[in-house]
Amino acid sequence: MRLSSALPCSSFQTALRFGEVALANLETWITAPAKGGDGWGEVKSCLFVRLTTKDGAVGWGEAFVLPYREKAVVEIIHALGRSSGALKTTSPWAFRDLAIQVAAKHWSLDFSAASSALEMALWDICGKLADKPLCDLLGGDHSRAIGVYGNIWSDTQWDVSSLERRATDLVAQGYRAIKIHPLLNHSVNEAANCVTRVRKVIGDDIALMVDLDSQDDSGTALQVAEAIRPARPYWLEEPVDGSDVQALAKIRRASGLRVVTGEKHCNLVHFRAVLAAGAADILNPDIAGIGGVLGLLEVSELADQQGVQISPHCWNSMTVAAAAMLHVCASIPNAEMAEIYPEYIAHGESFATSGFRLDGTHAFLLHKPGLGVEIDVPALRSLSNHYHSTCLTSAEADL
Amino acid sequence: MRLSSALPCSSFQTALRFGEVALANLETWITAPAKGGDGWGEVKSCLFVRLTTKDGAVGWGEAFVLPYREKAVVEIIHALGRSSGALKTTSPWAFRDLAIQVAAKHWSLDFSAASSALEMALWDICGKLADKPLCDLLGGDHSRAIGVYGNIWSDTQWDVSSLERRATDLVAQGYRAIKIHPLLNHSVNEAANCVTRVRKVIGDDIALMVDLDSQDDSGTALQVAEAIRPARPYWLEEPVDGSDVQALAKIRRASGLRVVTGEKHCNLVHFRAVLAAGAADILNPDIAGIGGVLGLLEVSELADQQGVQISPHCWNSMTVAAAAMLHVCASIPNAEMAEIYPEYIAHGESFATSGFRLDGTHAFLLHKPGLGVEIDVPALRSLSNHYHSTCLTSAEADL
Repeated sequence: MRLSSALPCSSFQTALRFGEVALANLETWITAPAKGGDGWGEVKSCLFVRLTTKDGAVGWGEAFVLPYREKAVVEIIHALGRSSGALKTTSPWAFRDLAIQVAAKHWSLDFSAASSALEMALWDICGKLADKPLCDLLGGDHSRAIGVYGNIWSDTQWDVSSLERRATDLVAQGYRAIKIHPLLNHSVNEAANCVTRVRKVIGDDIALMVDLDSQDDSGTALQVAEAIRPARPYWLEEPVDGSDVQALAKIRRASGLRVVTGEKHCNLVHFRAVLAAGAADILNPDIAGIGGVLGLLEVSELADQQGVQISPHCWNSMTVAAAAMLHVCASIPNAEMAEIYPEYIAHGESFATSGFRLDGTHAFLLHKPGLGVEIDVPALRSLSNHYHSTCLTSAEADL
Repeated sequence: MRLSSALPCSSFQTALRFGEVALANLETWITAPAKGGDGWGEVKSCLFVRLTTKDGAVGWGEAFVLPYREKAVVEIIHALGRSSGALKTTSPWAFRDLAIQVAAKHWSLDFSAASSALEMALWDICGKLADKPLCDLLGGDHSRAIGVYGNIWSDTQWDVSSLERRATDLVAQGYRAIKIHPLLNHSVNEAANCVTRVRKVIGDDIALMVDLDSQDDSGTALQVAEAIRPARPYWLEEPVDGSDVQALAKIRRASGLRVVTGEKHCNLVHFRAVLAAGAADILNPDIAGIGGVLGLLEVSELADQQGVQISPHCWNSMTVAAAAMLHVCASIPNAEMAEIYPEYIAHGESFATSGFRLDGTHAFLLHKPGLGVEIDVPALRSLSNHYHSTCLTSAEADL
């Protein structure tokens, strides 16, 4: 549960652990679901955290949230904030120790998402106090070009013609790697046809990721894997639920395709088991669900020891969590392409300057301290249907 | 994700699915942490749900909750209640379908606990409407004696003398099976010594379960397993985190001890993987975390197909969730001893008539409709530090 002492930031860790920067306030916003900026799909609710120090420095974090659970994650965030031990310093290490203690080995995605948001906000403050981009604190290089891919997902548009149009659009926007979900509402044959047709419209030079969205039986997953092989999928994501590590390993061996898993998990024991079983080529934990920066770094380090890559999942706003993800990608040796939700970008731009720029193929971090994200709070407020504040200087204020 | 049609209640299922009993109100209470009734340990916060139909029938449910997450689970419960589809009928099958849909394969213990509480409350109503004990609806027999064991756990008392005294007390109260946690704050040698000494004070005729509380490395777990063998442990629970199925299977083979796992999991895929790997002799899902009655029945059915037993975990009040657990135990062919927290009993009696009686060795269900639990609401209110109500007849009332 510890990053190795070889991590470049360990001396910085010591400095932070003993730096007592008092925190004064914790605020959360949940944005209302909204139309995607480019007419593709809906932007789900997103959850943002702002921590403010007594001296007025602010840090932003974001939690991975799902429908019906947004307020639940808010409750955990504020419960952690009110706890006497959680936010005594801005040290992400001290906070992570406390989150591990509070979790009491009962990891859940919702709890871990809450702790991720706070941890991310602490890193943002640390970067601002040090006047350095987060990735520089982590021993990375903010000028590194970070590979990205565009996800084509929708809960309403799954006919093949729509996917063809969307794929064509994204390639026209400059994306050189895209991901589709061909089994949503489709049979094995329809899915195979879908992959073939999308490959045809995008041509041979674009990487085409295929996400099977956790099939209930590995037989279906294997049939699809076999049928889509001629279309040269770049990877096969979640052919079955990641909890069945042996089934994943079997599909990986039988299909010969790169297998990706990890987005729904937050327990390091699970990732160790995936790696021990040789069940994946690429892990895709979400920085806003895995425990924040340190959580993603820990999984990255474990994966790297096994020659496994990290392609972080990011079904979040393309602002705070995406920036944090890219800072980590710029700091680890085994970063694969990071996930982008193109239809979320305009929505993010309506309340934030994201801290990075995208050319489709790559993301480039701006040279700004911390995460580098700037939030227009009145704009965020106008998009939000829930706001909650906890005063951290008076432990009882919000009980 | 479906109980086989062979389940005795399938004809009842059909009747319920189309029975439109309108629900009017959903209420939740979180009890404050309290002293245990018999001076051992603390009773954590518990979360209760009351559903009321338009005709005034009430159903009680309970969610498995952990510190810092109680209000989070409350938020999910009310979000499910407010959803237009969730509680249209009292059919637990319809509700479970919706919960599976809402979870969108992102299972988390907190989400699953919320859905468990509602599902349990629906069963309580169904039993009352049918005027039958729940286990009779499930094809079981309410007069069956259900084996139980007493858990000796504390977050403060872990010295061996305290455990010896507690074990002696429980045996004097009639328990013929008890569980200890010897590695809490102890080394391997101390843990082995603890098990040996407790065995000595309770004598040879008492079943002694040993819970290792998810060790980080299987080496430690195996050392303890080897060292305690002469004290004849009845089972070895969570030697390592249940997410590492292969490590569990290895420990099971190497130790020759009965291995128990499952309490922290809520995803059926995980349980299937445990069974496929031969990683456990006994599964211990918690009815208030696994998705309620149907969730526990589904795991039981899967386990039974592999000759694996079910000994449900129950770190809940010894009232609503315990009653639901015992009704399921009285309905399945592979029930092992069910878990009892002795120090929670007096606390439960201060606001509830529990629906069963205990003689230490066995639990006996009372012949009452539904769960058989009666709650003294003013008493529950006086013990609670959080109450929330949602009007279900007006979807917008509580938004």
